[in-house]
Formats: sequence, C-alpha cells, structure tokens
Amino acid sequence: IASSDIIKLASNENPNGASPMVIRKIQDVAASASIYPDDSFFELKSALAKYYETQNDNIIIGAGSDQILEFVSHALLNENETVLMNNITFAMYEIYAKGTGANIVKTSSVHHDLEEFYKLYIEHKPKLIFICTPNNPTGDAIKYDDLFRFLDKIDKETFVVVDAAYMEYAKAKDDAFHVTPKMLMDRYENVLYTGTFSKAYGLGGMRVGYGVGPADMIKVLHKLRPPFNITTLSLAAAIEALKDQSFVADCIATNYEQMAQYEKFALEIGLETIPSYTNFITLMLKEHKASDVVQTLLEQGIIIRDISGYGINAIRITIGKAAQNQKVLAALRAVLV
Amino acid sequence: IASSDIIKLASNENPNGASPMVIRKIQDVAASASIYPDDSFFELKSALAKYYETQNDNIIIGAGSDQILEFVSHALLNENETVLMNNITFAMYEIYAKGTGANIVKTSSVHHDLEEFYKLYIEHKPKLIFICTPNNPTGDAIKYDDLFRFLDKIDKETFVVVDAAYMEYAKAKDDAFHVTPKMLMDRYENVLYTGTFSKAYGLGGMRVGYGVGPADMIKVLHKLRPPFNITTLSLAAAIEALKDQSFVADCIATNYEQMAQYEKFALEIGLETIPSYTNFITLMLKEHKASDVVQTLLEQGIIIRDISGYGINAIRITIGKAAQNQKVLAALRAVLV
Repeated sequence: IASSDIIKLASNENPNGASPMVIRKIQDVAASASIYPDDSFFELKSALAKYYETQNDNIIIGAGSDQILEFVSHALLNENETVLMNNITFAMYEIYAKGTGANIVKTSSVHHDLEEFYKLYIEHKPKLIFICTPNNPTGDAIKYDDLFRFLDKIDKETFVVVDAAYMEYAKAKDDAFHVTPKMLMDRYENVLYTGTFSKAYGLGGMRVGYGVGPADMIKVLHKLRPPFNITTLSLAAAIEALKDQSFVADCIATNYEQMAQYEKFALEIGLETIPSYTNFITLMLKEHKASDVVQTLLEQGIIIRDISGYGINAIRITIGKAAQNQKVLAALRAVLV
Repeated sequence: IASSDIIKLASNENPNGASPMVIRKIQDVAASASIYPDDSFFELKSALAKYYETQNDNIIIGAGSDQILEFVSHALLNENETVLMNNITFAMYEIYAKGTGANIVKTSSVHHDLEEFYKLYIEHKPKLIFICTPNNPTGDAIKYDDLFRFLDKIDKETFVVVDAAYMEYAKAKDDAFHVTPKMLMDRYENVLYTGTFSKAYGLGGMRVGYGVGPADMIKVLHKLRPPFNITTLSLAAAIEALKDQSFVADCIATNYEQMAQYEKFALEIGLETIPSYTNFITLMLKEHKASDVVQTLLEQGIIIRDISGYGINAIRITIGKAAQNQKVLAALRAVLV
C-alpha cells in the first residue's frame, strides 16, 4: 500500500489540517526558526485571555496540554498523595501520576460517574482529581450543571483538573456540555481548565496547549515550566489559529455531518456507539474482537484504534474526510456484517 | 528605538539564521502542522546515528538538549544524591537538580578545573557530574585528553553528562578540543553526550536536542520522555539541517572572523577576554560594572548579557553579523574607553 493511500484515523488529528491562514503564517515566519520564542508568551496569553474573558496571569502555556498535566502532577503528587481518575480516560494522567509515585485510584465505570467519583473522593481524599470532558477515548461528555454539582462538594484542599481538549466539539454540539474556564474560575479556587490547539484548531504537530485557572495555581505551575517550552513557529501558529474561528466552526460542522454516517451505520448493523462530543467515534463491538477488526483494516491501509486495552471491546475511529470515511465504512461493513 | 533596529546578541542564536534549505523545508511541510510527528523519530535518529557513527538505540531526542538534561536529572537524582558541576556553567543544571531535591556541589573556579572536580568527586561521591565543554557562559573548552584523563578516574556508579551544545564551534577551531559521542562511548559506560540544533545549526526556536550514549542509559531516559516531545516541523527542520553541513561550516568560519574583532578591541583597551570556542565572547571588565555597561547599551537598543550574577564582573556578547558587531564595538568603545 502506497503511503499516500494510507488512511490514518487513529490519533484524532483534524482531517482538514490546519487553517490556511495558519499555514501561510508558518511559511511567512519560517526564517524565525533560529530565534528563541518570547518566553513570556505574552501575545498568545493575551489572545487566550481575551478569548476566555480572563487575565494573562490566569494562563500557562504548555507543549500540548499534556505538559500542563505533567506540571500539575509534579506540583501536587508524591508517594504520600492519591490521585483519582476515571476508569477509562486519557492515558497520560496515570503515566504522569506513576512518575511521582502517587497512589492511583480509578472509578469502575466506562463513563464519568460523578457519584462514584464523589464516593471515592470521600474514601481516599485525593490531592488531585482528573475529569476529562469530553472524555478520550470514549467521546462522551459531562453536562456542566452535573459537573458543578460535583465540584461544589469538593473542598479546596483537593485540586481538580478539567481536561477540555475536545471542548470546542462539545460547545458546538450542545451548550449544556459547554464548560468554560471563566465559569470554573468564577466559582472555584481549586479547578484548572486545560485546553489544546491540537484538535479543533488542527495543530496536533505543533504541541501547544494551555492551562487556565486561579493566578496562585498558575504561579505554582510556572515554577515547573522549563524555558522555551514551545517553539517559535508553534507560538506564531497558535496566535494565528485563535484568530480563525470560522475555520474551527467549519471543521466541527463537517465533523458532525460525517460522524452521522458512522452512527447510521452502527444503528443499521445493531452495534452501539457512545454518543460523541469529539472528533472521533467509539464503536462497541459484540461478536468481533476489536484487535481483529483493527488488524483487518490495517491490512487495507486503514489505521484506527483498538481500545480494548482500556477494558472495553471497542474501536475508536477519528472522523476523517468524506472520502476516507466512505472507505472506512465500506471496510467495516465487509468485516462486521 | 524601532524593533527592527534592536540588536539582540544575548541568547547565542545563530546570527545567520537557519540554513536556507531548512527554511524552504519548513515552508514545504507547513501543512503537516496538524499531524503528530513520528514519535519514534526514526529518520532523525538514523541521520544522527550516521553522522556520529553510532546506532539509533544510542540516541534520544529532546525538546532542546535542555530536556535531555532534565531527563538525566530526574532519572538519577533525589534528596539522597549529590550532583557536581562547575561554579560558573549552564544555569539549567542547577535548576533541574533543585527540582529533584539533590545536594548540589560546585567547584570554586571560573573554568572547569578537573583536578578540583576530581577532589570533590572523591569527597562527595556524586551520582551525576555535569561537564560543559565548551562552557556556557564563559566560552572556554576542555581538551579531550584532559577530559579523558578525568573520566578514566570516575567509576561507573557515577554518571557524567558532557554537554556539548557548542561543540561544533570547538571542532572547527581546534581539533584538540573536539570530543565526539563515539570517542566517549568506545571508552565509557557512564557518559552521556548531549548536543543541540539550537546553536551552530541555527534552530534555536525549534527546540531540538539529543543525547548520545550507551543503549542501557538511553533506555532509562526514554522512560521519562513524554510522547511527541518535539514538533512535526522541528523534526523536519532538524533532519534537513543535518544535511546542510556547509551552512554550518560557513557560519562558524564567519563567527571566528567576527570574533577576532572583539578580541582585538579587548586587547587594545586592555581588557581580558576568555578564549572562546563558541559563538559568543566573554569580556572581563575592570573599572566598569557589567550591569552599567549592559544598561548603557540597552538604551541604544543593543541587548547583551550581564553575567555578573555568576560571580564575575563580565559581559557576554553573542557574535552577531558584521554590521551588528560594528555597532556593538562602537557602543562598547564609547562606554569603556
């Protein structure tokens, strides 16, 4: 299979790429590759502060939101502390927590069951809780009033990260699932919102994410930030990306149009999908093993994600371009029906 | 002062920028900003392995060599361990070591005095020793036979990092100062060489560095590497940069031609410079305070580095382009003579 024929829908990259404005900006500033970035990230922070109706000192920039998760883990966790997270969620929470020697407690459910989270919170008094909404790799999200009811009960000695890497998709689909940093900061001293340019903004390869939260918390995280933690071109790209909101809106609209085909297909063949507020869809399998399905598609040059390692017999497919999705659906039909 | 008139010679960036080949490559692949990099960094590792006559599994890629220093510090140090470094050297060694709670021991000398290093090694049995050659921010380097005589006496329970961020400049100036990863690996199991694309290759803004050492050591460091720790464009830029060795050679030749003017100036006005094997020069001041000189130049739009914070009354100037250096020398003459 020629590499140009390979369909890679395994990493939740934006199938439409980056905004043409951003690509032009990168080309225009390519010669600045030799110059260290402005390490205060003033312009990007100002743009994010404006976008999120907050202040520059409420913002920290990371090499992907991953790096913010790493800072939080290292700032709060050690062998004597406990961290609480969902049973199936973004794998880096556990990896960073393990690096600190912390005790890791997980819920038992596929979806974020906030009642179980609360029970485990009372039982273990964790220093840190990771909430991922919309959740990766399942795609489901939490209504903000449910989230707030939960956060209201958490005392401020426990920190909560609301990982919102896919929030742009939830916002566009249903406002009841739209959590903003401002909503969180107006109400809580102990909650950090993390976001990324890797998904809806189409900058997965540029490694730019951010944390938004109370200035005191941001100050502590800044102590762990190494200098120049994003590249000069990443900085320029992120600033430009934030300006092109119509690109983001168009990508998300197309995403849901295309996702509908997967939902229709699943309904038709009697398989369950998890309602998705993201740019991917998770298909729960029955008689077919996820690893077999993934392998069969791989042999046809289609790369999707086997998520059975998380304890569910399911596959995760990034919503691709129309032509890609047609091929994936045809391949799935051939193997599943 | 218009921002285009500002002369910034404080961060040891390559004044010639990046290679035109690299800039074109970045422009060509700008659209891949949306795609995560190949996280094995296979192509870059292969190119580095060929360049350094070693194997891919002897190499780890970092977001600048800084990140490799961070991995080493976190892998080896904790509250019960000691780290040994030069009195005046790259500031990040101490910052990363502090993050682990390790005991920090420094020599008393400006230059790397390997006899003092050895004495402190015997006294403190450090887990880790940082050797920076050529040294930043002083510019001096260590002859490889002196370095080897020292390393021969260090037992393998102690790890040594040879930070060679400016080695391309030493190699070009005097082969007696040219240390390679292969020389180190052929002889030692406990030494890691670190290099960067930020200096001679002109990619300071792209954050790509590397460690080269025994495969066992590299394996341990890889456990601390977060996924996608360099950007897709940085990866492409570094691969391309390694191909354009004539650009590097030209930049270094020009660097030393231009540096000679600073040396001549210093001799003429009776100030001492530290013989430099880098792209910067350190000027030891007498009656003038470094902070005053730096401030006076700043008011003229010339940014150089006051390094009196390291305990010497000195200024560090990145060698700029010919026209920049002329202006800096005129400004220095006005304030110092």
